[in-house]
Amino acid sequence: MDKVLQALADNEHRYFRELAELVAIPSVSTDPRHAGDVRRAVEWVAARLGRAGGIDVDIWETPRHPAVFGRWHEAAGAPTVLVYGHVDVQPPDPIDAWTSPPFVLTERDGRLYGRGVSDDKASMLLPILAAEAFFAAGEQPPVNLRFLFEAEEEIGSVDLPALVRARRKELACDVALSADGGMWRADVPSITVSARGLASLEFTVRGPRKDLHSGRHGGGVANPLHAAAALVASLHEGGRVAVRGFYDDVDPIEPALLTALDRLPFDEAGYLEDVGAPAAFGEPGYGTLARQWYRPTIEVNGLYGGYQGPGSKTVLPSDAHVKITCRLVPSQRPDDVAAKVRAHLERACPPGVTLTFEDDSHGSTAYRVSSEHPAVRAAAETLQSVFGAPAAVVGMGGTVPVTTMFRETLGVDTVFFSFSTADEDIHAPNEFYRPERFRLGLRAWVELWRRIARSGAKD
Amino acid sequence: MDKVLQALADNEHRYFRELAELVAIPSVSTDPRHAGDVRRAVEWVAARLGRAGGIDVDIWETPRHPAVFGRWHEAAGAPTVLVYGHVDVQPPDPIDAWTSPPFVLTERDGRLYGRGVSDDKASMLLPILAAEAFFAAGEQPPVNLRFLFEAEEEIGSVDLPALVRARRKELACDVALSADGGMWRADVPSITVSARGLASLEFTVRGPRKDLHSGRHGGGVANPLHAAAALVASLHEGGRVAVRGFYDDVDPIEPALLTALDRLPFDEAGYLEDVGAPAAFGEPGYGTLARQWYRPTIEVNGLYGGYQGPGSKTVLPSDAHVKITCRLVPSQRPDDVAAKVRAHLERACPPGVTLTFEDDSHGSTAYRVSSEHPAVRAAAETLQSVFGAPAAVVGMGGTVPVTTMFRETLGVDTVFFSFSTADEDIHAPNEFYRPERFRLGLRAWVELWRRIARSGAKD
Repeated sequence: MDKVLQALADNEHRYFRELAELVAIPSVSTDPRHAGDVRRAVEWVAARLGRAGGIDVDIWETPRHPAVFGRWHEAAGAPTVLVYGHVDVQPPDPIDAWTSPPFVLTERDGRLYGRGVSDDKASMLLPILAAEAFFAAGEQPPVNLRFLFEAEEEIGSVDLPALVRARRKELACDVALSADGGMWRADVPSITVSARGLASLEFTVRGPRKDLHSGRHGGGVANPLHAAAALVASLHEGGRVAVRGFYDDVDPIEPALLTALDRLPFDEAGYLEDVGAPAAFGEPGYGTLARQWYRPTIEVNGLYGGYQGPGSKTVLPSDAHVKITCRLVPSQRPDDVAAKVRAHLERACPPGVTLTFEDDSHGSTAYRVSSEHPAVRAAAETLQSVFGAPAAVVGMGGTVPVTTMFRETLGVDTVFFSFSTADEDIHAPNEFYRPERFRLGLRAWVELWRRIARSGAKD
Repeated sequence: MDKVLQALADNEHRYFRELAELVAIPSVSTDPRHAGDVRRAVEWVAARLGRAGGIDVDIWETPRHPAVFGRWHEAAGAPTVLVYGHVDVQPPDPIDAWTSPPFVLTERDGRLYGRGVSDDKASMLLPILAAEAFFAAGEQPPVNLRFLFEAEEEIGSVDLPALVRARRKELACDVALSADGGMWRADVPSITVSARGLASLEFTVRGPRKDLHSGRHGGGVANPLHAAAALVASLHEGGRVAVRGFYDDVDPIEPALLTALDRLPFDEAGYLEDVGAPAAFGEPGYGTLARQWYRPTIEVNGLYGGYQGPGSKTVLPSDAHVKITCRLVPSQRPDDVAAKVRAHLERACPPGVTLTFEDDSHGSTAYRVSSEHPAVRAAAETLQSVFGAPAAVVGMGGTVPVTTMFRETLGVDTVFFSFSTADEDIHAPNEFYRPERFRLGLRAWVELWRRIARSGAKD
């Protein structure tokens, strides 16, 4: 047996214990109360990477959460790959909806449950363990390695652009390999060639200075909840975004992607049953996958104001809050889209209330890579070898901001190489990971690096 | 000096301590966790009424919260008055907005702060203390007395209709005097001749069975927050309610009420400054007071779904919730209005989501009493005597469900005789009461009963 794969098998008994340790750290990057936990997770990953073998490890500070950097460069003449992943996670809310505690890795019915286990803690551990297996087997990794694990992916990688610019020399490479991303389905190996961008906005609608009795005052002054609802309702018209200019920079979906879409074994009824939605819904003229992968959207992620407790409370509330994210396709610029949505809301704001926007909006552009890129081909061949089935070409509805950043700052493309799956309830209660993907993923990382070394894949 | 008024002055030192005791009981009737506290408040009032003198006191059970009944009937040949008030309070949320703890009666800048102090604990204590003063002074009260203090006013007096029907003989009287209601302004004594009715609805908009990642799934299935916003936005059009048939049973405002409105010293700019609203807003064609007192409204009291924590969370939430109350004018029936709003929402519900209504909607009709009613005249004369200024004729935007019930079941009108004021932030943080109104109110109750006895006021 291959000595590296043997090393993986020999050490498997401790991999899930280590994953449980990492999941136990509530590294919720969006919540300032968890800043210390985010740092603990970064330090845990740095220490783990340091124990893998001959990798030099550093912690890079940013104004918010630090990142982990690793470097090994003894494969003379071989390509250099930059492995990317993230250690931060989404908030566990609503906590009551979890069957087991979100930060206790729990096996149930052959799945591993925990916040962040799928996005991205299991998948980002794989390349660390794969590198370790080379060293443990007494073999050198076949490619030169860079590792970059950030802790701000769930807040839009806000400090990463500056960090990557400042560290472009240390990060120089031939191709980036993202351990973040996730495959389309558990039963079809797939190569992701696109990810949508993101533009976020948050605003508050204010009416009276304080909550008022809705009997005494109702009818006299504007209710901020009515105004917020009118604003949110104005964003769409018949499933299509109604913001002026929103679709201006949106190109038609490329024929190659449409062809690949047609080839996919997509069972819409099964999908709807899985997510429990009564029907598909969205922009007219596009199929469900096309709308999710290759068309832009506006989604309200939070809308709230007034009384939320049991029973009723006759209040005319002082304010209402709205959190919005737009998903973007190539050519749409996040700042431009955010400005158009903001201008739309300002035009649409009804009388009797005021509208204020939070300053912390963030964004990132969408990403596309050619399916003919040599590293994409190496990844596709690896998946075919490991899974025993050809890899489908798919898009991703979510956002991986680093892809565009790596292209712009380091001049390299990114290959998504994650062993999470899109149905694993990431960002939702009861997020889970399939442990068998962990084993397949370890083998795949070993093989991918070998294939890239053989192909000499340089961009 | 009048012996009864002397008794009031002699005992004043303990009145505010007793008020503090009552305010300290968090009798939040809408929250099942406070059911024991509501009962404690009822028992406190029963005990206090029992100590007043010769009043027979009983606690009447209902399926939810009990009520206090008191009876004294030794004024042979004199009219019988039924004094009404309520011991339950609104939830204190948002608690963080309180300057001092909501259930600790706190004096600050000459005001008494506490949840329920204005609505209705201070005002409902007054007639108990006034009755006690007669007994303490060795005088009989000049009228026969019935007391009914319920503990479900803040949840729409849900069990009171059945209770009043079952106890109609014990409650038989010539006129009802409501210690709940509140005056229009602190500087103008006023007699309230109308109160709006209420119809409540609560509904949930459901999309996917669980929260989804808004990147992966956004554009594929409907977002319940978009649907809830569209539904709420559809309820109004240019400040007017857009529900089909909502205004069908609404009569024009009576000329006498319009004349009284014209006479009121209403300072709209001062009102807007007080509530901190940027502008007045509502149904076109009516002034602010007319809209608040004599026109029906729909107000959303709560609208919420998705992520509400710090920062952003890219979630496409599973559901959204809406709490609504309508305020009604005479001739509008709560069930009919609720059914019309419900039918409107069902018609307006967009595709891709389902709409479910909570079963616990409640309502009560609006109330009007003639300003020529003998007990209304006795009350107006009393206020002129106590305040030294004529009483204005005003309406009330809020709802006092018992008024219609007393008319329908006991055949009597109700005179509002509360010494709370509309600006005392009831149902909002930092609710307060003006202690000087407590002293004036005690004197007024003594005088009102004497005037009613002299006029022999029977309906």
